Formats: sequence, C-alpha cells, structure tokens
Amino acid sequence: MILQPIIDLVAICAKKGIKNVILSPGSRCAPLTLAFARHPEIHARTISDERSAAFIAMGMAQQLDEPVALVCTSGSAALNYFPAVAEAFFQNIPLLILTADRPPEWIDQWDGQTIFQPEVYGKHVKGSFQFPDSYSHPDQIAWASRISNEAINLSQTFPKGPVHINIPLREPFYPSENEAFEFPEDHKITHLCSSHFGLSSDSKIQLQSQLKDHNRILILAGQQNPNPEIQTILDKISKEKNVVVVTDTISNMQSGETINLHDHWVGNEDLNQELKPDLIISFGKSIISKPLKLFLRKCDVPHWHIQEDGRGKDVFQSLSQLIPASPENFLCWLLENISHLERSYYARWHDLNSQTEKLLETAFQELEFGEFSALKTVLSFVPKSSKIHVANSMSVRYLNQLGARTQEIYCNRGTSGIDGSNSTAVGCTFTTKDPVTLITGDLAFFYDRNAFWHNYTMPNLRIILLNNHAGGIFRMIDGPKKQPELEEYFETRQALTAENLAKEFHFNYTKVSDQKSLTEALQDFYSPSIHPKTLEIESKSSLNEQQLKKLKGLIRDSLF
Amino acid sequence: MILQPIIDLVAICAKKGIKNVILSPGSRCAPLTLAFARHPEIHARTISDERSAAFIAMGMAQQLDEPVALVCTSGSAALNYFPAVAEAFFQNIPLLILTADRPPEWIDQWDGQTIFQPEVYGKHVKGSFQFPDSYSHPDQIAWASRISNEAINLSQTFPKGPVHINIPLREPFYPSENEAFEFPEDHKITHLCSSHFGLSSDSKIQLQSQLKDHNRILILAGQQNPNPEIQTILDKISKEKNVVVVTDTISNMQSGETINLHDHWVGNEDLNQELKPDLIISFGKSIISKPLKLFLRKCDVPHWHIQEDGRGKDVFQSLSQLIPASPENFLCWLLENISHLERSYYARWHDLNSQTEKLLETAFQELEFGEFSALKTVLSFVPKSSKIHVANSMSVRYLNQLGARTQEIYCNRGTSGIDGSNSTAVGCTFTTKDPVTLITGDLAFFYDRNAFWHNYTMPNLRIILLNNHAGGIFRMIDGPKKQPELEEYFETRQALTAENLAKEFHFNYTKVSDQKSLTEALQDFYSPSIHPKTLEIESKSSLNEQQLKKLKGLIRDSLF
Repeated sequence: MILQPIIDLVAICAKKGIKNVILSPGSRCAPLTLAFARHPEIHARTISDERSAAFIAMGMAQQLDEPVALVCTSGSAALNYFPAVAEAFFQNIPLLILTADRPPEWIDQWDGQTIFQPEVYGKHVKGSFQFPDSYSHPDQIAWASRISNEAINLSQTFPKGPVHINIPLREPFYPSENEAFEFPEDHKITHLCSSHFGLSSDSKIQLQSQLKDHNRILILAGQQNPNPEIQTILDKISKEKNVVVVTDTISNMQSGETINLHDHWVGNEDLNQELKPDLIISFGKSIISKPLKLFLRKCDVPHWHIQEDGRGKDVFQSLSQLIPASPENFLCWLLENISHLERSYYARWHDLNSQTEKLLETAFQELEFGEFSALKTVLSFVPKSSKIHVANSMSVRYLNQLGARTQEIYCNRGTSGIDGSNSTAVGCTFTTKDPVTLITGDLAFFYDRNAFWHNYTMPNLRIILLNNHAGGIFRMIDGPKKQPELEEYFETRQALTAENLAKEFHFNYTKVSDQKSLTEALQDFYSPSIHPKTLEIESKSSLNEQQLKKLKGLIRDSLF
Repeated sequence: MILQPIIDLVAICAKKGIKNVILSPGSRCAPLTLAFARHPEIHARTISDERSAAFIAMGMAQQLDEPVALVCTSGSAALNYFPAVAEAFFQNIPLLILTADRPPEWIDQWDGQTIFQPEVYGKHVKGSFQFPDSYSHPDQIAWASRISNEAINLSQTFPKGPVHINIPLREPFYPSENEAFEFPEDHKITHLCSSHFGLSSDSKIQLQSQLKDHNRILILAGQQNPNPEIQTILDKISKEKNVVVVTDTISNMQSGETINLHDHWVGNEDLNQELKPDLIISFGKSIISKPLKLFLRKCDVPHWHIQEDGRGKDVFQSLSQLIPASPENFLCWLLENISHLERSYYARWHDLNSQTEKLLETAFQELEFGEFSALKTVLSFVPKSSKIHVANSMSVRYLNQLGARTQEIYCNRGTSGIDGSNSTAVGCTFTTKDPVTLITGDLAFFYDRNAFWHNYTMPNLRIILLNNHAGGIFRMIDGPKKQPELEEYFETRQALTAENLAKEFHFNYTKVSDQKSLTEALQDFYSPSIHPKTLEIESKSSLNEQQLKKLKGLIRDSLF
C-alpha cells in the first residue's frame, strides 16, 4: 500500500534542500526507507548502529550546514539516537529526525518495539512533532504537509538544531509490486527567506558611548565553524585597535594575530592584575580552557555577548549586554567605532603568547617521548587542506595547548562526551574528498568503534590514536590522581590496541612508541589510499603526566 | 571534601539490599564512585561504554531480582543508559540509576558535559528524583536521605522497575588524603514489607459464576522469569481440567504439558473454529508469536488478565476482567474452582502440538544445512543448568518454533531491540557460575560488541552466533522481501565474522558452516574454559529462508 503523505514528506525534504539521509534498518520505517532510497535527488546511506548513525548524520550536517535526515524504526532505535541529538542541539547543528512508530493504539500494549516516542528527546530538540496516524480526512493530509514544512524550517532558523517528527505507521505499509512511488513536483512548500540581524541606531549610539569607558577589551571567540570573514575582521581589530582576541582551538578563529596559548599561563596569580580586562566581548559557543574560564569569572567585569537571537549564556557570571546581531555585522561596526586601546595591555598578552610559542618549539627536545610531544609532531604533518576532528577529553586539551592551527577543527563540545567522535569524523568523510584527520584517545576510539561498521569507503580518513590504555585525563587532574582508586575506577585501564579493529575493517595500521618511528610513519601517512589509515601512538599514562608536568615547570620557570 | 549525604546514600543502598553497582568512569561522579568502591558490602565493577554498562546492570538485576545500581558522570553518559532503562522499564527489572550532574546554576551555560538531566528518561522510569545540590540546612540532608529510601523502595514495589536519581555535585568533591569515608551504621531506613495480593470473597464468587459459562478456556503465559510453583499449578490445570495452556519460549513455563509449537500452525484458517477459545486468561508480559496474537484478536472473546496491580494491557482488544492478584494465588484458586472442561478442545490443541513435535524431529533430515536446523542441533547440547539468553529478532523466533526448553530463557522483549543482548548476557555471567548461553544473530552481536570491553572474566559465557551477514528477518517477512531494496536497505549486508573480535577479547573461536563440523564443535563446547567460547554458524540468508519455507510446507502438508 502506498502512503502518499510519507512520499510527500520526502519530496518536501528534497524541495527544501535536504540531500542526504542516514537510514537504519527496520520494518516499521519501511515506507520512509523506500521513499528516501527511491528519491532521485537524495543520497541514502544505511548504518546499523543507530548511535553511530546519528553522529554520522550530525558530522555530515556540520559540514554541509544543512539538515541531514535520519530514519529509524520504532522502539529503542530512537533512544540510541539520543547522544547525537543532544550533541547536535548544543552545537546548533540541523538534523531532521524521523522515527517510525507503531500507531498510538498499540503503544504500551506489549507489542514489539514500542516505547513512548512522542517528545522522547525532551528539551534536546528545537521542536517535536507527531505525524498524523491516518490520512482519511483531507485536513490530516494538509496537517502532514504542514508538519513536514514546519519541522524542516525550524531546523534551519537561528539557532539551527535537531527537530523530531515521530511518525506512527499502521499496517499494511509495504507497496505491492505494481505500485510505483510518485514524488509530486508541485507540492505545497513553505519557503524560508534568509535574513540577517543588525543593531538599531539607538543601540549603536548607546554601545558606542559605553565603549569609551573601556581601555582593556578582550574579545573571546567560542566554538564555531570556520568563517574567514570574521577572522579577517578579528585580526584587524586586534592589530589596529589593540584589542586582545583570545581564541581556543575549537573557535576556528586562530591566527598569528590572536592569543592561542593562554591555557599555559592564564589564571596564574602573578599575572591576574596585568591580564585583567575591563570588558569581555564574546561570540560563538563554548571554550575549552578551564583556567581561562575561571580567570574571567574572577575578573568580574562587564561581559557583552553577540548572538543573533539575543540570547547568551552567562559563562562568567557577569553577563551585562546581549547583542542580537550577527558577529560579522557587529564586529565590523566595532572595528569602525572603537578607539585605539591601551598598547601595554595588548603587548603583555602577546608577549606571553609569543614567548610560550618559542618555548614550545624547544621544550619538547628536553622531554622524553610522550603523547603530547607526539601530537606536536603529528600536527606538523597534517596538510592544510585536512579537516581535523578531535575527541574529548585529553586530545582536544592537548590540541588547545599546541597553538594556532590553519586547519578546520571540530570537536563534540556540545555535550563534551567521548561517545561519538569516530562517527562524527566518518560523517565528515562523506562530505569531502579532502583528508579528514581524527585525533582521538583509546577510550573514545573503542567506545565508538561501530562508526566504522558499514559498507561505505572512507579513503580520506586518517586516524591518530593516542593509546595510553586508559582514560589519561584522570591522571592529569588533581582530584582523582590522589585516590587509591585511580587506576581501576577512574582511568579504567584497558588492554586493546587498534590492530584487530584495523584488520577487521581493512584499515592500514601502524603502531609506534618512539619519536623516530613516529616521524617515519608520518612520511607516507597522507599519501592516497583505498582504505583509511590508522597510526597508533602507544604511550604510558604515567609518562604522559610527567611530560606535561615538566613542560608546565619549564614554562613557569621561563615566563614568571 | 567529604560529601556525607552521598556516603549515606551508598550506606542506604547496602542496608536495603543493593549488593552490586556498575560504574562508568567520570570525574563528576567521583564521590559516588569512591563511596561505592569503598563500601565493604557492595561489589563494584566498571564498564566504560555506558550503553553496555546499563544493559549489564539490567542483566544482573534480572537474575538477582533486586536492584543493581548504576553510576555515571554528567552529560551524554546518562543518554547512553537510555536503551537499557527503557528495556528494564518494560520488563519490570529494578535498577537504581544514579547520574552525577553539574549543579543547576551551570546547566545550559556552555559548561562541559551538561545536558538537561532531570527527568531525562521521561515515562521510562518508575520515578525520577532530583537530589539536593547543597547540604547546608538539616532539611536538605533529611531530604537526601528520604529520596534515597524512597527511590530504592519504589524500584522494588510491584511492578519493579528502574528509578532515577539525578545528583548535582558542586566542586570541591574529592576527598583529601586524610579524609576517611564513614558509612553510618544507624542511618534512618524506611523499610519495605513484602506483601501479597489476593482476591476478595465477593470477587471469587463472581468469577466462579462467570467461569461456569466457559468450556474452552485458554491460559496464556507471557514473558516472565522461571517460577516452578506456577509451572506446577499450570501443568495440573492443563492435565486435570483440560484447560489449554499456551506458552511461548520467553514465558519460562514450557513443559510437556503445555502447548509450545503453536507458532507453526495457529492462525491457519482451517483451524480457527476448532481452536477458538471462549475465554482467554493471561498473566506475565509479552508473547513472541505474532500468529497467536492475531488469532486471539480475531477470536474476540472475553480476556481476563492477572496482574498484582490490577492493570493489564489490552493485547487482544477484548480485555474484560482485570484480576489484581498474584498469578500463583489466582491459579491455585482456579485449579480448585474450575470444572472439567471440554476434552475434545484440549485434545485438538495437544494433538497438533505433538504432531508438530514429531515432524520437527524428522523434517530437518530432509532439509539442507541452515541456521534453523543448526540451532536445533545446538539446543540438544545446551546443558540443563545453562541459562539461555537469546537475541532479537530471528534468534528468539527460531527458539520459539523449536519447542519446550528445560533451560531458563531470557530475551529483551521489553522494547524488542537488538541493542543490548550481549551485555544482558554478560550481566548474567556476573551472577552465576552456571553456563550462560547467548544465542544471537550477526547484527545484534556486532551492534553490542562493547559488552565485552572490560576487565572481568566470563569463563561461563558460551556464544552461538548465527551469522548470515545480514538482518535475516527481512527476508522472512513478506513486505521487505519483495522490494528491490531488500539487500541494501533492509537486510543491510555486513561482511564481518567474529574472528577478529574473538582474537581481540581472547575468546575461544570456532566457525562452522555444515552439520558435521557443527556437531564436532559442540562436543567440547561446554567443557570448562578460562575464556568465553564463540561458535559461529555461518549460513546464507537466502538458504535460511528456503529452509524455513520448506519446513512450513512440510508441516502444512502433514497437519491439514
């Protein structure tokens, strides 16, 4: 039997620019599966583990900046999507989640594969819709069409994000052999204009007068996708106006002109007075550096946040001004309307940053081999064109301490989980022919190993696996380090290497545990390949801790 | 710093009979981790992938029939628990889910590892509590203690199920070196009596008078744990009173006296009139057999359901009488108060059942090797003492068509997902020294492979992997079988065998693909071993379909 409103839903997806869907196998979702698979303009892929499927879709949508559709069967399938749904929500990545369901009369009646699906993602989606469960009245058909339009539009308005349509399907729902699918050409579409956000003249006057009171302005870029336009403006504001621009690695705003190595020294008592701004201006989402966050909280100075919808998080407990404009617009205006600020303040930040940069160049020569220094070597081999996906927890912290990158950097800092970083990188490989470099630790890597369990090639995937056979971060933070339970219950030592996994999925595989073999292995790492390549860097958790400790000492001794 | 209410919570757990906890690594949950790890009466294990951790805890609680505690850090960790939480909810398995959280002031403020945790499991828990986030007032401490007592009690009252406590923790929360944990001996406990449910005299009189109108009574046992007492009564009711007792494999109520092979012929048009009951009496949860379900719906006869809390699902759309009593009590009363029913009705069901039994003994000799016949061979080698865990989708259907088992049978039929069957079996191995046999298909097996990613031995685990390199069920049901998308989007062909996985986790591994080597491999399969053993039975999805089809034909030709 043909369920035309389901076919219409897929037609609307295509009309509204959805070009990709990730399907997971199931029977209840068959009408959706068939409609997507048969639509000539939508690329369908199928991934069996829904947890990975959803992160893969998210990794694609992150790159494409357009919603990717997800289709799963009824029951716990939808729950396995949840970690990625939450990550997409907090990272503002558009997803159209289509969960097939049994009709409402059979929910909670001991029928197979039923849970309570409506609104199951709670506050972690922008909207949640229940598709009609019968199409006997024309109003129900119009309703189905409206939901389809509304949901897709909602996923694309600012801030973008995941939207859920739960779709009850009553048997029979398989087409018979003589029934063809017809995707309507003239289906009703609710189009969505693009728009931009700018400040009123009154606001501009007001902000300008406030700016005059500030001489030590610190601009902070939070997590966002690369945006060369913003980056150019930022560099100018920094260079021409002496504004301190601080950029974590996930901001994708790092340059020779921004502060990138603050994680090594910010928050140090001796520096606090010198480095204290009198105004913080932020845009983008979260930052990595905990010392920076704690320092700026301690400063207790006014904090302006730029965000299109006039919302913002009070990250430093001093949010004083919300600026409902696009960062491009506001920063452009700022560049033109700000005076030249105190040079010595700017100079102190930049002095510390460039000293640290020089120190990092030489410091590693004095240290034994460890994953932090190994990563520095690795980064010198990553091509400019590569997108870098970096996992929580230590990988992204290391990266943040290694200075400005020219490559695009992605990390799941929406929920900061270790659960989907392989899959997110896999999704990225589906959108580009450029190399995709995944930098990950052993816990994150094995946690999400089903990312690779599918039938699609990923010739451009390069995996750097920092394997210390444990959750290395627990040795780096003071609390757990001192507990007798450190190894068993915090680090959770695990014995695996990637060798068997690589064999299983036909990945090229090299393991190194010293500098020489690392450099050798990297020579050829980015040469073309049919299969993904894995470079496993094995190290001891305790040595890594020592390396980081020594480095900290070196920097402290030199800078203060 | 010592957070005494957290230590008290763990002390209350122990006092109230919780003897096991599954921890997952994290920093925010450290006070919980340490308190559980240090409690002398609680056995703590740590599992890194929270999806598996929760199913493992569920597999333990299912065996122990007492709550197992789960502890995870903040953020997406809690979401990875969700598939198991839903399964436990619909299977009425007690779990105490303790999710660490950031304090409420830092939720949704771009802080690491935060989502909206309160009530995140929606309707899929029996209760959801928010622990106090500070203990500065005595009322808050009393409140914490009340929540701990109330949550554990709630998980244990009928129907048992998962209960969630979300626990915000504000830094500092690590104990310093000189701070010792003291578990109070005299902490306030809200004790919970055990009780039983029995019918009033009036109800008994009323039901007895109603019973007189019925001469063809069918008792249907849904999913439940083994209960020899009920089984004895059921056998008596069947034998002495001519009541037809129909038992699916997951009912754990199968015997030589019950109908077990109905899945082969029930629902056949020619038999409907003969087999139609005039009263259905059910207890337990879901049933596997779809033909049986559809047949009983079609019958449209009164349906009584026995359940302690006076609730029940209207599985056949004819629920006429709710019986708030324990099945033991009610069935005992029924045995004493029911007349001898129509013998011919009883005889017809039993005749069909025993004919099918005989047919199955010989039928396989006429068929080529396939996974269904292979499973029959396997079952003849499974020791009586083994607990059998069987995965969705085809594995449990096969088992249901192979007749009465003496072993205990477990299957995740709460949500009927393929997502946690390995882990549930692993949890079972943590509770017994008897063999645990996991019967699974390739999709379910690889989906949940992280079940094995931990540091605990499972010498008694035996895995039967039916590997047809696809979701074989899609070829067995009419709808998808006829679609050109069958192989790519429904079966989702996958190339893996378990060889690399076995190597990785040090499992013994044998692969067979014919009858002779299967029988050989089984000779030694249950001999003692240090490591789990995996027997992979490789077959072709299309041949399996043919085998089932031929068997169906043989049965049809012989019976009707």
